[in-house]
Amino acid sequence: MQNIQEYLAQNKGRFLDELIDLLKIPSISADTAFSQDVLDTSEAVRTALENAGCDTVEICETDGYPIVYGEKIIDPDLPTVLVYGHYDVQPPDPVDLWNSPPFEPVIKETPTHPEGAIYARGACDDKGQMYMHVKAFEFMVKTDQLPCNVKFMIEGEEEVGSRNLGTFVAANKEKLANDVILISDTGMIANDVPSITTGLRGLSYVEVEVTGPNRDLHSGLYGGAVANPINVLAQMIASLHDENNHITIPGFYDKVEDLSEQERSEMAKAPFSLENYKNTLEIDDVYGEKGYSTNERNSIRPTLDVNGIWGGYTGEGAKTVIPSKAFAKISMRLVPHQDWEEITQLFKDHFERIAPKSVKVKVTPHHGGQGYVTPIDNVAYRAAAKAYETTFGKTPVPQRSGGSIPIVALFEKELKSKTILMGFGLDSDAIHSPNEHFGVWNYFKGIETIPYFYRYFTDMKA
Amino acid sequence: MQNIQEYLAQNKGRFLDELIDLLKIPSISADTAFSQDVLDTSEAVRTALENAGCDTVEICETDGYPIVYGEKIIDPDLPTVLVYGHYDVQPPDPVDLWNSPPFEPVIKETPTHPEGAIYARGACDDKGQMYMHVKAFEFMVKTDQLPCNVKFMIEGEEEVGSRNLGTFVAANKEKLANDVILISDTGMIANDVPSITTGLRGLSYVEVEVTGPNRDLHSGLYGGAVANPINVLAQMIASLHDENNHITIPGFYDKVEDLSEQERSEMAKAPFSLENYKNTLEIDDVYGEKGYSTNERNSIRPTLDVNGIWGGYTGEGAKTVIPSKAFAKISMRLVPHQDWEEITQLFKDHFERIAPKSVKVKVTPHHGGQGYVTPIDNVAYRAAAKAYETTFGKTPVPQRSGGSIPIVALFEKELKSKTILMGFGLDSDAIHSPNEHFGVWNYFKGIETIPYFYRYFTDMKA
Repeated sequence: MQNIQEYLAQNKGRFLDELIDLLKIPSISADTAFSQDVLDTSEAVRTALENAGCDTVEICETDGYPIVYGEKIIDPDLPTVLVYGHYDVQPPDPVDLWNSPPFEPVIKETPTHPEGAIYARGACDDKGQMYMHVKAFEFMVKTDQLPCNVKFMIEGEEEVGSRNLGTFVAANKEKLANDVILISDTGMIANDVPSITTGLRGLSYVEVEVTGPNRDLHSGLYGGAVANPINVLAQMIASLHDENNHITIPGFYDKVEDLSEQERSEMAKAPFSLENYKNTLEIDDVYGEKGYSTNERNSIRPTLDVNGIWGGYTGEGAKTVIPSKAFAKISMRLVPHQDWEEITQLFKDHFERIAPKSVKVKVTPHHGGQGYVTPIDNVAYRAAAKAYETTFGKTPVPQRSGGSIPIVALFEKELKSKTILMGFGLDSDAIHSPNEHFGVWNYFKGIETIPYFYRYFTDMKA
Repeated sequence: MQNIQEYLAQNKGRFLDELIDLLKIPSISADTAFSQDVLDTSEAVRTALENAGCDTVEICETDGYPIVYGEKIIDPDLPTVLVYGHYDVQPPDPVDLWNSPPFEPVIKETPTHPEGAIYARGACDDKGQMYMHVKAFEFMVKTDQLPCNVKFMIEGEEEVGSRNLGTFVAANKEKLANDVILISDTGMIANDVPSITTGLRGLSYVEVEVTGPNRDLHSGLYGGAVANPINVLAQMIASLHDENNHITIPGFYDKVEDLSEQERSEMAKAPFSLENYKNTLEIDDVYGEKGYSTNERNSIRPTLDVNGIWGGYTGEGAKTVIPSKAFAKISMRLVPHQDWEEITQLFKDHFERIAPKSVKVKVTPHHGGQGYVTPIDNVAYRAAAKAYETTFGKTPVPQRSGGSIPIVALFEKELKSKTILMGFGLDSDAIHSPNEHFGVWNYFKGIETIPYFYRYFTDMKA
């Protein structure tokens, strides 16, 4: 498969232009003002899959935005790879922090990306990474090197919680049957430190409401005598961690996997500079659970973070009010074996129990998902590792991510197959933030690596 | 002075009509869209003072809205009463919660006000209560019963913090020289339980900002490893009270006056139903400092309340963000002898000291004011009490209020005179809230009681 380099060299300009055209469509699934753009993007993906060589491509309607499904079945006896990706993007807000308009892609060189990076919303998450698979597929088809069957499932609601994907998957198990699922929607450690994400954290996300008096009160006339819902909420939130930053919810850690010393020392070998980490974030110190390193805290350990809090007067100046209500959005990242629905219930029971009698508490679950692990002795993992070795000249580091992709656990449950999270982006690519970008080098490295995975995976399965 | 009843009976309709005309002008000092209305109201007050019998009335310009000053000096050797009030009002928001438009006054009967209450913004706070003094003065002038000199100082910026009053008072000490200051801008316990406010709490109001990482972070990738400013802020706020709800700021209680058991048992005689209190607020329990009753907690004890809190994602649905910053507005109600500037400094030092190294903290003082006490053996207090006894047939209860009127301490400092807080409104009159009102009975009871104060005060000073 030496000719992948040659094919890339011949088609570089076109591969970039096609991605740039895709990035120009503001497919913001969270904002209905852009619904026609989201639909237009699904059509663009359909066309791209057809042009790349799919035999059939369908726009599959859902209760929300459609899922684009394409396939090329060369022999039912050969293995099947299912590629998942998404064509919708995060809102670009705050737009004024972008150095160039989010939907007018530009390529700029940076110290991290000396060959240039494409700046646009969706450049990395996930249009750019999804499109690597389309172009790798094109190469295999056009050069008669496709070694197995391929299915594409590209959705348009990932950034709004994949609302209709579960229904679609459950209703189309036959159509989606596969031997491995391939997703590029994560990152790697560095361009010279390739890595494959082998674990994801689960998630339980709740909203809490604390109600004190039935109306806002004057803090002079009532202050000190009536429970202030903000003070109470602060105390309740504070009590959810102990002095070692362990979470205090009874039963919370019961199912948490304890990694062996050996596994932890393997993990500790990943290159990491605490000084760089602190400098990048401009913090004087890190903060977290006692007894664990920074890389353990954000990957193999569960967490509890307040993602939003509000109550009382938040405008300019001063208002002396005791509000009737205070609110918070709280999410817990979970590790494999913790069940998100069970944890949500434990949280709810505990939070209601610790409320003083002087307030009322309401806990509303938002959503959640299970954690996930790919064992590194799995065939697909080994095939992926070998592909990276071929193109990067280095064995990839297996890496547990702190993030959550609930659909990965869903795929395993419904389709009974493992997922390989083959991400080529970097943590510094600013996904979900202003000035999102994706290295041109990374884009082409993905296109180069993917066909080797198909080759090795098919060989190993034979 | 029996003829006050007669005079009231003859002029009832006119007294109500004049107040209603004043209430129709939306003198909202906080909103510049109403600046002409605020100025129009100052002119209406000038005319009212002239008509009532002042010898000279001036519109005194300030850097903000003007102060209306009027006087009638009958004999420099006689005592002088200075009446303070304000002609500006709070914004009526939320307007949709009003049952009738806030600037179209209507009179409606209620269970608490069987003789009717005037519903309008400013009806009680403070146009209605200020106008009682104008009409009581009119009665004394027109019936040749004014026993002493009178000065009026009616400002237009009370609801925005009396921004220019301090400068005016400091620059006009001679003009404002007096023997006692009379203010009706507070309430009494009930129509059958007259009370006089003898104490006010001081106030220190600050805003705090907690900064963690230099940008919003993905809570999956960083959660557990980086200090979350909301969690940290919650912990810092929670730590400001101990398990007995004592405030933990070192030195905070150093100057707090300890009331004698006798004083506390006097206070405890004020009629109070904890059940009614809880039912009115729809709370299952009260909450406050251990060792003190509800009425003590909100009057003779200092407090610390969060008046507003915000940070992270507060919109609909869920966003998994660790925000860069979290904020809170915190106010402390202080008791006499606590110096608000000293307390503000103690808070700032403490809050900065308890911050973990993983965050940065900024404390910005907003404003504050000193507490105040009128001793009940003061001549003016005794004259006021006797006036209430005459018109209510009952000795008024001396009452410490939990609220703050910083100008009262300012008056004492600059003008060296005590203030009598002769309020005729009720706690249930909904000042600063939708459907503010003022009992017609209360309005007339104020006009009836005030002349007796002038009489008794002049006699006692003789």
